Amino acid sequence: MHCYKLLIAYDGTSYSGWQIQPNGPSIQEHIQNALRIILRNSFISVIGSGRTDSGVHAKGQVAHFKTEQSIDVQKVLWSLNGLLPVDIRIKQLEEVSTDFHAQYDAIGKEYHYSLSLDRVADPFTRLYGWHISGRLDQDLLQEGIKHFIGTHDFTSFTNEQHAGSAAKNPVRTLYRLDIVPNEGGICLEFEGNGFLYKMVRNIVGTLVCVGIGKMKASEIPIIFEARDRKRTPSAAPPHGLCLMKVYYS
Amino acid sequence: MHCYKLLIAYDGTSYSGWQIQPNGPSIQEHIQNALRIILRNSFISVIGSGRTDSGVHAKGQVAHFKTEQSIDVQKVLWSLNGLLPVDIRIKQLEEVSTDFHAQYDAIGKEYHYSLSLDRVADPFTRLYGWHISGRLDQDLLQEGIKHFIGTHDFTSFTNEQHAGSAAKNPVRTLYRLDIVPNEGGICLEFEGNGFLYKMVRNIVGTLVCVGIGKMKASEIPIIFEARDRKRTPSAAPPHGLCLMKVYYS
Repeated sequence: MHCYKLLIAYDGTSYSGWQIQPNGPSIQEHIQNALRIILRNSFISVIGSGRTDSGVHAKGQVAHFKTEQSIDVQKVLWSLNGLLPVDIRIKQLEEVSTDFHAQYDAIGKEYHYSLSLDRVADPFTRLYGWHISGRLDQDLLQEGIKHFIGTHDFTSFTNEQHAGSAAKNPVRTLYRLDIVPNEGGICLEFEGNGFLYKMVRNIVGTLVCVGIGKMKASEIPIIFEARDRKRTPSAAPPHGLCLMKVYYS
Repeated sequence: MHCYKLLIAYDGTSYSGWQIQPNGPSIQEHIQNALRIILRNSFISVIGSGRTDSGVHAKGQVAHFKTEQSIDVQKVLWSLNGLLPVDIRIKQLEEVSTDFHAQYDAIGKEYHYSLSLDRVADPFTRLYGWHISGRLDQDLLQEGIKHFIGTHDFTSFTNEQHAGSAAKNPVRTLYRLDIVPNEGGICLEFEGNGFLYKMVRNIVGTLVCVGIGKMKASEIPIIFEARDRKRTPSAAPPHGLCLMKVYYS
């Protein structure tokens, strides 16, 4: 048995998300189908490090697949990029140990969320950043950020159905949440040991509420305490979010 | 009479270019139609600083229009952006002297041409940069660039039909042609007193030929001398090009 690791970038605009689903095109399905054609093996399953939602982008998604065949990674890399739509690119393909698992072995992830702050929305970032037309106070934003760094029960900041139940541990550690200026706005850089479903988008939604003065940073601990998603402002839209990196030990 | 100046950004991907034409949507037509609706005046003509081709982008196109009406520029700016497609944005609208002319008064322009140099094309720059998969030698590129800076008869580097004829002066001055690194590649920054039709794309096509070793930089003066477009390599594709700025005195 051989195991291969893929490093994947995609513009999520035209997809229903990473995960295969009955309605709408997914990135996982495109890659799996292309691999099945190239390797003439209809049993190949592509397992990602985690799903990304409809409209969410990735510059560093990781996935793996297993096969009895020993493959020429350079050849298969080029064939894959030849078959895949241009908004999905395989950046690397390498053989890894057979016990590698893209999801279970991940020990951390980095996500970036872009906020466009130009008074008039920039046509070039319209698909890759959330346009905030009002004034976003970065000091307030920074005050809000302090409450998220570290280890917390993130039940109030996830749309995961069973979060907080015995079935799923809702405790995660956010190592880093930095504000980094970029062209026309800022990027919120998240690094943590794992992220619950919609966790980044819920945090960004809350931080923007704080930054535009609709909510006080001091309310964040109360929301954490409530362990109830209904207490949290609306999630930020998907198109500002990008999965940058998956960490393995 | 009042004259108003527009500063415009557009993602040219979905358009047949700036200029109104019978087949296909143009940026000029969209803006002109939106203004005619807002000002209830079907005689308004929008005059740009120059055309951009199908697929070419702009972050700083300038245009003007004249009307008897005195308008509230803030209100009209927001109405325009409300009516226009999201890939065309009016960044500024201001009243200027009635003798202002966006094309005739322009004394210089800045264009950027992006080259993506990642081994695997980046899905996020696929619409905004020309992907060169081979090795591009920046020293060779720099050698080529030297031949373009300054004042030259650019007849060999334009697809303008009457270039070099008495009808049109083909002499232009390129003040600056810099290589600036950007994410995943480089940007060629052009600044000059004016640009002939397809001049930037023809120069980039030639420079890339030099950079990948398909042509010697020393052949460039011979091409200039020939005053014949047929001697020049193929033009670079439109989607790498962006009109950044139009200068007025």
